Amino acid sequence: MGGRFITFEGGDGVGKSTHISLLADSLRAQGHEVVVSREPGGTPLGTQIRELLLHGGDVSPRAEALLYAADRAHHAATVIRPALERGAIVLCDRYLDSSIAYQGAARALGKEEVRELSLWATENLLPDLTFLLDLPVDIAQQRLVGESDRIESAGMAFHEAVRAEFLALAEADPQRWRVLDVREDIETVSAQIHEHVRELLAP
Amino acid sequence: MGGRFITFEGGDGVGKSTHISLLADSLRAQGHEVVVSREPGGTPLGTQIRELLLHGGDVSPRAEALLYAADRAHHAATVIRPALERGAIVLCDRYLDSSIAYQGAARALGKEEVRELSLWATENLLPDLTFLLDLPVDIAQQRLVGESDRIESAGMAFHEAVRAEFLALAEADPQRWRVLDVREDIETVSAQIHEHVRELLAP
Repeated sequence: MGGRFITFEGGDGVGKSTHISLLADSLRAQGHEVVVSREPGGTPLGTQIRELLLHGGDVSPRAEALLYAADRAHHAATVIRPALERGAIVLCDRYLDSSIAYQGAARALGKEEVRELSLWATENLLPDLTFLLDLPVDIAQQRLVGESDRIESAGMAFHEAVRAEFLALAEADPQRWRVLDVREDIETVSAQIHEHVRELLAP
Repeated sequence: MGGRFITFEGGDGVGKSTHISLLADSLRAQGHEVVVSREPGGTPLGTQIRELLLHGGDVSPRAEALLYAADRAHHAATVIRPALERGAIVLCDRYLDSSIAYQGAARALGKEEVRELSLWATENLLPDLTFLLDLPVDIAQQRLVGESDRIESAGMAFHEAVRAEFLALAEADPQRWRVLDVREDIETVSAQIHEHVRELLAP
């Protein structure tokens, strides 16, 4: 496949959509075709699955994992792969690592099982490059709600576990991952992202 | 688990719902708790997934398999297992063998993969007994539409392949399967079903 597949991972409030937007603009200005997408919900079917997951009432843990995998399967088959085959650069807000980190942190299912499910769903489509936008949980929460004292400790523990899973995934595969400390200002982080992408695209 | 899990398989038009209803009535008359269910769509979540599969537009093959598996996971976790744990007899109109037979016949995915996905979804919940209501495809089609000449040959070939898959599954596991020729009249078939269930329930 001629294109490049780049994913952005991290908790809510770390700035994934901001950095995707900045990178997309500059890659387009350089003449690249850029496809920006997200999970869950990157396709019409995925939007309906996302609706089910958010408002469908009780969902058992394996059904939830399978619904995320169905969304990912359809997204990979109908959006990501066709774009890569055209030679586009695909920037995706969350991908299989989010499933692994969140399910791993929730401890309902094994991380290895969730990973295998995603790989089956996508016929082993892994990103060429994954950015982890890393931020201490208390700071991310402050950015989201504006005041940290409204966050209950159980929620904090869960988000700490998600962050730890992301960091462990990045450490285990340094070839694919780049960890960015997003306590730095947006311009600094954006420059780092651009530099890593320049390396990836270098002939 | 104290209960018994019995599934009914076969193409459309073979009389699964009729025989489930007759068996449920007589088991209830004998004092058993009977839970009648179906796939897809045996739960509120499953009903929404079924809606997606029927009316959600384009669905890629792996996404489809994962949606059926999500329905099955939720059904097994929230309906079938709790009923079996109470000691009920669960009668289900279609279960994992339908996924294997239909996907196998459609040839989009491997039968073994579809089976593994269902076993993961249900934490290896297999029926104690499975009835295959078997009928030559042309007769089943006549029962459904009243006139066989409206059935196009591509549709016939697909239904022939589904029937062959069901027969192969039954042959491979005679311990679990009972194949019934439903060209016989309803009373004869129903008596056979009752006899097999009596054997299953015998102390």
